[in-house]
Amino acid sequence: MAVALVVQKYGGSSVANAERIKRVAERIVAARKAGDDVVVVVSAMGDTTDELMDLANQVSPLPPGRELDMLLTSGERISMALLAMAIHNLGYEARSYTGSQAGVLTTSTHGKARIIDVTPGRLRTALDEGAIAIVAGFQGVSQDTKDITTLGRGGSDTTAVALAAALHADVCEIYTDVDGVFTADPRIVPDAQHIKKITYEEMLELAAGGAKVLMLRCVEYARRFKVPIHVRSSYSNKEGTLVTGSMEDPDVEQALITGVAHDRSEAKITIVGVPDEPGSAGRIFETVAQAEINIDMIVQNVSTEGTGRTDISFTLPKADGATAMTALDRIKDQIKFKSLLFDDHVGKVSLIGAGMRSHPGVAASFFACIGEAGVNIEMISTSEIRVSVVCRDTDLDTAVRAVHDQFELGGSEEAVVYGGTGR
Amino acid sequence: MAVALVVQKYGGSSVANAERIKRVAERIVAARKAGDDVVVVVSAMGDTTDELMDLANQVSPLPPGRELDMLLTSGERISMALLAMAIHNLGYEARSYTGSQAGVLTTSTHGKARIIDVTPGRLRTALDEGAIAIVAGFQGVSQDTKDITTLGRGGSDTTAVALAAALHADVCEIYTDVDGVFTADPRIVPDAQHIKKITYEEMLELAAGGAKVLMLRCVEYARRFKVPIHVRSSYSNKEGTLVTGSMEDPDVEQALITGVAHDRSEAKITIVGVPDEPGSAGRIFETVAQAEINIDMIVQNVSTEGTGRTDISFTLPKADGATAMTALDRIKDQIKFKSLLFDDHVGKVSLIGAGMRSHPGVAASFFACIGEAGVNIEMISTSEIRVSVVCRDTDLDTAVRAVHDQFELGGSEEAVVYGGTGR
Repeated sequence: MAVALVVQKYGGSSVANAERIKRVAERIVAARKAGDDVVVVVSAMGDTTDELMDLANQVSPLPPGRELDMLLTSGERISMALLAMAIHNLGYEARSYTGSQAGVLTTSTHGKARIIDVTPGRLRTALDEGAIAIVAGFQGVSQDTKDITTLGRGGSDTTAVALAAALHADVCEIYTDVDGVFTADPRIVPDAQHIKKITYEEMLELAAGGAKVLMLRCVEYARRFKVPIHVRSSYSNKEGTLVTGSMEDPDVEQALITGVAHDRSEAKITIVGVPDEPGSAGRIFETVAQAEINIDMIVQNVSTEGTGRTDISFTLPKADGATAMTALDRIKDQIKFKSLLFDDHVGKVSLIGAGMRSHPGVAASFFACIGEAGVNIEMISTSEIRVSVVCRDTDLDTAVRAVHDQFELGGSEEAVVYGGTGR
Repeated sequence: MAVALVVQKYGGSSVANAERIKRVAERIVAARKAGDDVVVVVSAMGDTTDELMDLANQVSPLPPGRELDMLLTSGERISMALLAMAIHNLGYEARSYTGSQAGVLTTSTHGKARIIDVTPGRLRTALDEGAIAIVAGFQGVSQDTKDITTLGRGGSDTTAVALAAALHADVCEIYTDVDGVFTADPRIVPDAQHIKKITYEEMLELAAGGAKVLMLRCVEYARRFKVPIHVRSSYSNKEGTLVTGSMEDPDVEQALITGVAHDRSEAKITIVGVPDEPGSAGRIFETVAQAEINIDMIVQNVSTEGTGRTDISFTLPKADGATAMTALDRIKDQIKFKSLLFDDHVGKVSLIGAGMRSHPGVAASFFACIGEAGVNIEMISTSEIRVSVVCRDTDLDTAVRAVHDQFELGGSEEAVVYGGTGR
């Protein structure tokens, strides 16, 4: 077999201390021994990022983005150097590279830069010389200003996929604390089944529905550059989940239903008594967009008869709640709505399945089973291969279990769950 | 007055926590407010370097130099970003730069790289745009390999002086935990006097004699590029000590005696029974040099009558003791010496004074007063403006006080001593 090029990504919990770093080093060396060229992307150790943020807040209530990025990127610098040392100990050559040294060129938006290009010349040289290349995840360098940037949440996964694309790697392995992707979160649904293979589109919808195993951006990147992702556990040697292939490929086997995702991270804002005039909704969502807030679902009720007024509700990340409320309150007189309601006790359940396109009955039985479980549906949204509802957060687990049962997604084996998350 | 360019350097204890960082930020802003352009060089916070070394040792007994440098340089990255944030808080623009970004080009000897060149283009731009530039001390980038390097002990001082030279700064201010240079260590001699001004040559001899306030390399660099150094306390606003001018300048006022230095960091190795033949000493010191050990003083006794053998003693840093002993033991049969003695209970006292050149009696009264104090002299070495002796380490304080009194170096005011040291 020809030599394969593998990109492996390890999250913060996989390298949380010296012992775990040594264990990860062994896994990397095993891949190298098997004859593969290996590039490793690593996050900061355990709570390092939180600790650094803490320091920043002690010094400044509103640290400038450039300096915050400079500060936070020291986290990966530490973990990658330690990992390279641990590999050396096992008799293999390893060299660590910052995002900048690895050629990760980004926009200059500090804290949430996007990757523009990857020029992995130094990594290629390291591989050609037989070394294992260790790259700092989550970071890059601005193409314009040459300043250090960070990619924001899920940035390390995106770094890994971007490097895999640029190096034409055979696979990008994302190591996490679960054995891969499941038909539901095993912490809620004990008989959730392991998914062996999933298309990019289904994975995108699962991520959008709140599945934390892969970040949306990383899957989008992988889909665009056709990088196969293998999601697997850093605590076991089991096969994980392979994310690859498009629904449009004729040879991709399509399951009717892929799985159930849930999300507790969103809040709901309701704008009460919006005059039912052309342009009202436009001005409202323009205001929210200008505040750089990504909204998810939107529902507008039919105008209450005789009043000429309607209510508009939308969901957004809880963390953006205050910003959105402030921005909307400022246009209250201009729009002439009555009041603003903020509700952060909502949850979202989504059913994802490529086969849904050709089976129109799926949505109906989804709604029905949630209702039968005694859960009230507050909002609905659908895409071609997904249907989602918003309910009370206290009803979320009940709804997830009801849907999982309804579509017979359960297996006979219990899933193994480990603790911790990476970035 | 035209705008001056000031390079300020703060050690690890000056930025040990958020509070101290904020205080340093105020001092920097005060200089900027006074109209000066300011470049700041900063060390890692307090014990960061030791903590990182600890992590490295947990992962690897012998970490590769490249990776150790990558690891340790994260320390300054943290302190410089926090310092820039603190300055922002005070309403001034500050930008932090790694050694690499600041253009500090070095040799590729990891752990003790030497500065080859400084290309401070980005710093110049920052200053031209009205910003304060914060630079990571102690680090650079290898001109050949583009790998991150560290400069070794005292590296941050050297970074500051090198930047001051490259930017043609008016002065390089080294902030430390004492008010400057004293005629002796105030912890040993309470009436040690503050020195207002000192030549590079005298400062070099003081540093070589063990005075910790400035590292030898940094003073050598300053002398070569004629950078005035102002050593002062980061805890007070007192004038410190100005290191400037050469003894060769006709207008430099020369004190007969500058001060007394002492050193507890050395050990003494004695090679007993070396055959008194041509080449023996040469082979011995060639062996020590090949082990990359800097030796300080050397004494060879007159051959004991009739035996054709002699003893050779030399001093070296305690930390290099084991390496030197191992290397010498390996050539025992070749040289045919009898045995090796290792003594790490020695101390060194040095008297420095530019006037010594023209006053030959100084050395004699130096030896005499040490003898009168009941301290036995074990080794002697001299330079044009320095005389040093080695004695028991337990006698060191007595000898320092005796010499300080003998040459009437004491003042009426007691020196203020603060705790902690930087790197």
